[in-house]
Amino acid sequence: MPKLVDHAERRRAILEVTWRLIATQGPDAATMREIARQAGYANGALVHYFPNKEALIEAAYVYVSEQTDLRIRAAASGKRGLAALRAFLVELVPTKEVTLLEARIVLPFWSRTVTDGALARTSDARMQRWRDDMVVLLAEARRDGEVRTAVPDAVIAEQLLAMAMGMQVLAQLPDHATTPDLQLRVIEAHLAALA
Amino acid sequence: MPKLVDHAERRRAILEVTWRLIATQGPDAATMREIARQAGYANGALVHYFPNKEALIEAAYVYVSEQTDLRIRAAASGKRGLAALRAFLVELVPTKEVTLLEARIVLPFWSRTVTDGALARTSDARMQRWRDDMVVLLAEARRDGEVRTAVPDAVIAEQLLAMAMGMQVLAQLPDHATTPDLQLRVIEAHLAALA
Repeated sequence: MPKLVDHAERRRAILEVTWRLIATQGPDAATMREIARQAGYANGALVHYFPNKEALIEAAYVYVSEQTDLRIRAAASGKRGLAALRAFLVELVPTKEVTLLEARIVLPFWSRTVTDGALARTSDARMQRWRDDMVVLLAEARRDGEVRTAVPDAVIAEQLLAMAMGMQVLAQLPDHATTPDLQLRVIEAHLAALA
Repeated sequence: MPKLVDHAERRRAILEVTWRLIATQGPDAATMREIARQAGYANGALVHYFPNKEALIEAAYVYVSEQTDLRIRAAASGKRGLAALRAFLVELVPTKEVTLLEARIVLPFWSRTVTDGALARTSDARMQRWRDDMVVLLAEARRDGEVRTAVPDAVIAEQLLAMAMGMQVLAQLPDHATTPDLQLRVIEAHLAALA
């Protein structure tokens, strides 16, 4: 029986190398050559999985977003309403080593969306799903009597999404980074004001 | 009398060309050659003002930030407390053509801060000044009885700064952009909750 190649696993391994390289050394350092080297492939072997660097970077962004979503789902699992929303937000903001590293890849991606329409639409769809998820949890929290503010759920979701995205930037500042502790206080204060 | 060259004016003109080029066509399109061409200089004349592209890009970021600060100061002039804070925030978020264009240059800058320490410290200092300004206005609003929440001013300032920075990203989405109207509702809802 011939040796079977697990293409999904190989693809995943390449994406792991790619996003960590971008996060630690910036997008310019993430050449196809260096990614192939770190993933243990011969030069040129990557094109079987990703035709060019643009495709690879977009796939890496989707991969990181999916990892974030998996963690959000795990954290919110078994919770509802405000508790689920809190767990969702805590996973979304960069309070831990892995989410701080993920935030470092988000900035180069956002930068690329200015000139890359396909990447912009991918990013757009992701943000819209997060908004929709938050609105569902807010509606649940209202039914449970946890949220009583007159502010519409769509406005609250926008506040929370904007705050979470802004913290991707602020948590990376070299001298006055928004610390994990302050990020959590920002989230708690906002959720407390919804009652 | 020899013709005098207004170096400050020339420097300003080069920076205007630079940031608008980055905002409309992305940082890769903003080559020293193209900037020189659009500013009406011979190739190589730019180095009298900026030794290299890194220095020019950092200067363009500082320039755009200063333009933002000038507009903030003008908008908040003659106001105090919550009214001044509202004016400050409205100028900071991308609700108008010029601020939306400025937001498009912010993303490539933020991306560069991941690997450019000097630019990261410049961006850090700017964010810290905005926090400080907001804390001053919040303290004033508390003295005037406009703000009564138990949430500390430092946490409120962080919420507002994060929200304003997040909206730089969300306002640029191609299909589900945070509209100027929604940005203003987000700000109003947040300020109303401080009473």
